[in-house]
Amino acid sequence: MKIKVLGTGITKFGELWDQSLESLAQEAALEAINDSRLTIDDIEAVYVGNMIYGKTANQDQLGALIASKLGLKGGSLRVEGACASGGLAVHLACQSIQAGTYKNVLVVGVEKMTDVGTSEITSALMGAGSEMERKAGLTFPGLYALMAKTHMEKYGTTKKHLAEVSVKNHFHASMNDKAQFPFEITLEKALKSPEICSPLTLFDASPITDGAAAVVLSSENDGKGVYITGSAVATDTVDLSDRKSLTEIPATKEASQKALKMAGVDIKDIDIAEVHDCFTIAEILAMEDLGFCKKGEGGDFIKKGYTRLGGKMPVNTSGGLKACGHPVGATGVKQIVEIATQLLGKAGKRQAKDVKIGLTQNVGGSGATVVVHVLSL
Amino acid sequence: MKIKVLGTGITKFGELWDQSLESLAQEAALEAINDSRLTIDDIEAVYVGNMIYGKTANQDQLGALIASKLGLKGGSLRVEGACASGGLAVHLACQSIQAGTYKNVLVVGVEKMTDVGTSEITSALMGAGSEMERKAGLTFPGLYALMAKTHMEKYGTTKKHLAEVSVKNHFHASMNDKAQFPFEITLEKALKSPEICSPLTLFDASPITDGAAAVVLSSENDGKGVYITGSAVATDTVDLSDRKSLTEIPATKEASQKALKMAGVDIKDIDIAEVHDCFTIAEILAMEDLGFCKKGEGGDFIKKGYTRLGGKMPVNTSGGLKACGHPVGATGVKQIVEIATQLLGKAGKRQAKDVKIGLTQNVGGSGATVVVHVLSL
Repeated sequence: MKIKVLGTGITKFGELWDQSLESLAQEAALEAINDSRLTIDDIEAVYVGNMIYGKTANQDQLGALIASKLGLKGGSLRVEGACASGGLAVHLACQSIQAGTYKNVLVVGVEKMTDVGTSEITSALMGAGSEMERKAGLTFPGLYALMAKTHMEKYGTTKKHLAEVSVKNHFHASMNDKAQFPFEITLEKALKSPEICSPLTLFDASPITDGAAAVVLSSENDGKGVYITGSAVATDTVDLSDRKSLTEIPATKEASQKALKMAGVDIKDIDIAEVHDCFTIAEILAMEDLGFCKKGEGGDFIKKGYTRLGGKMPVNTSGGLKACGHPVGATGVKQIVEIATQLLGKAGKRQAKDVKIGLTQNVGGSGATVVVHVLSL
Repeated sequence: MKIKVLGTGITKFGELWDQSLESLAQEAALEAINDSRLTIDDIEAVYVGNMIYGKTANQDQLGALIASKLGLKGGSLRVEGACASGGLAVHLACQSIQAGTYKNVLVVGVEKMTDVGTSEITSALMGAGSEMERKAGLTFPGLYALMAKTHMEKYGTTKKHLAEVSVKNHFHASMNDKAQFPFEITLEKALKSPEICSPLTLFDASPITDGAAAVVLSSENDGKGVYITGSAVATDTVDLSDRKSLTEIPATKEASQKALKMAGVDIKDIDIAEVHDCFTIAEILAMEDLGFCKKGEGGDFIKKGYTRLGGKMPVNTSGGLKACGHPVGATGVKQIVEIATQLLGKAGKRQAKDVKIGLTQNVGGSGATVVVHVLSL
């Protein structure tokens, strides 16, 4: 598999009350098309990743809506797999190019979350959970808190381990002017922040964010630039209580093994990664399930600085979901934008050194959908 | 393109208050898998077409949900393009097989519409329209009534022409025990039925329906059976007022031309078709835009009996959306099930004679998304 990332675009992530979903999508899309040096007429389809706009604004058919706002004809669709919607849009666009249906496809991940109240957003996001979880009163902090608590009991992971993830990702975000929280925090501040759902605190949780990210993918193969070389999706139960273990996300293992095999590389070859840190515990689980370290050692792996910029394998140089922000449908596309930018050496102050192969991991719900991509120079 | 339809499944369409979305999806899926003679373990991915369940039941991630209910691992996703969601799911599954990602993919189209009140459903369906259309108080009968009225004024199409579509589709449904309305109606009854939105009457409109349809698609190519030989999507503005004409659906032309070219056949080669008669006027527009007859002559084309079972090219032998029912996300998949069943000569009382090449046309909204498939023996 060799799909070229011809262009990337991203909006500011944050509480963007003066922007609409349409204007965010257009901004990211036009930046990506401009970066690709193609014209609108060269783009044959638009694949949109979005989770909740149908619920919060009663607007469906976002594929056609965004395509026609951009003046694009051809194919269009919206794909949804909860918080993995963006990754799925990239995955499908790759397939459409591999299938020979299109040469150039625009992928847009977008979410407008701050136009409605917190309780409405919290409820809409729980659509990613099961009916039983909703009826039991669980929210996403609750689901990930269960995983964190079990991981702590089983492997000795501490609140400090969790906080280290947050401190690192805020450090990275301090060098990313698109980030929602472009500032550093101290370990003390993270540890003293109010509890959201024990053991998770405010600084263990990703925020509610508006934003969009876009990539132009192409069958072009001139050897230059960044290519997606692996793309895979894996599935698990939507209901966390149907799983055998609370301390792993099996779909991460399955999707990453497939994507790495497709790319013909080993996990040890990965120089840089963007993973789905919707909560700090999720980044610890990702380190273990992707195979960067052994099960139970994710906390220490991060604490040792391996995944901090300057370390042997930087993780979430964008600031991650925690500090760059988490506009749900945009996240999986933003991960591709960040890795492509890093591999091209265009990441400015947060540029990682000598990075040639990168990986993205995008999770839906508590692990029911996982999309992994491998990118190479 | 040559993707085998290895198995098909369909539930009863209707007001199924004793069934859930999950049970409907499972029933259709298991029937399709059983028909395909594969086992659950042979299926590598589940692609789900669904429009409104996130809104009416706050349940997202239907790809993973349905996959895990069936005990399936591998890939999963939900795709949405309003009432074209089912067709899009088939289109994407074909691409995933062409791309070499999977060998066998299950496609499930499903909608559970009768669990909430009529006003809630009407509002949810208007998510397929534009914000301006919603604010103007338009509903889908209103949008199609505008098209019908303009077609009448421009081409002399009459209420009787519209009613002929309904009478024909009820006649077909009377031979389909899966249909929501498996009975004939007289032309007089259709003409005397109450007006919903002038000039459209109750019998010009498709109903609110629960139901699911499923197909197993495969890279297998042993020469036997039915194959999808063309699959294309086209896009237009979501807002009807942004179009140049109210008497055509340009995306139907674009998608059908692409799909026919891909299949290497001409529109004259089509022996049988399932088209998107969400309102009777839509079937008249489909006849014209697909090129079965000239623009403006769709009403007469149907009146002459050409598209009635026994005619030269039967259309909507299932009963169509009008009489078989319209569980939104299921419709595009049901069209594939019906054409495959007809081509295999397994349609029982409603079997069309000498049919070798079929076409399906699935429309999202008032024509913003159109998916066309060509199937051949």
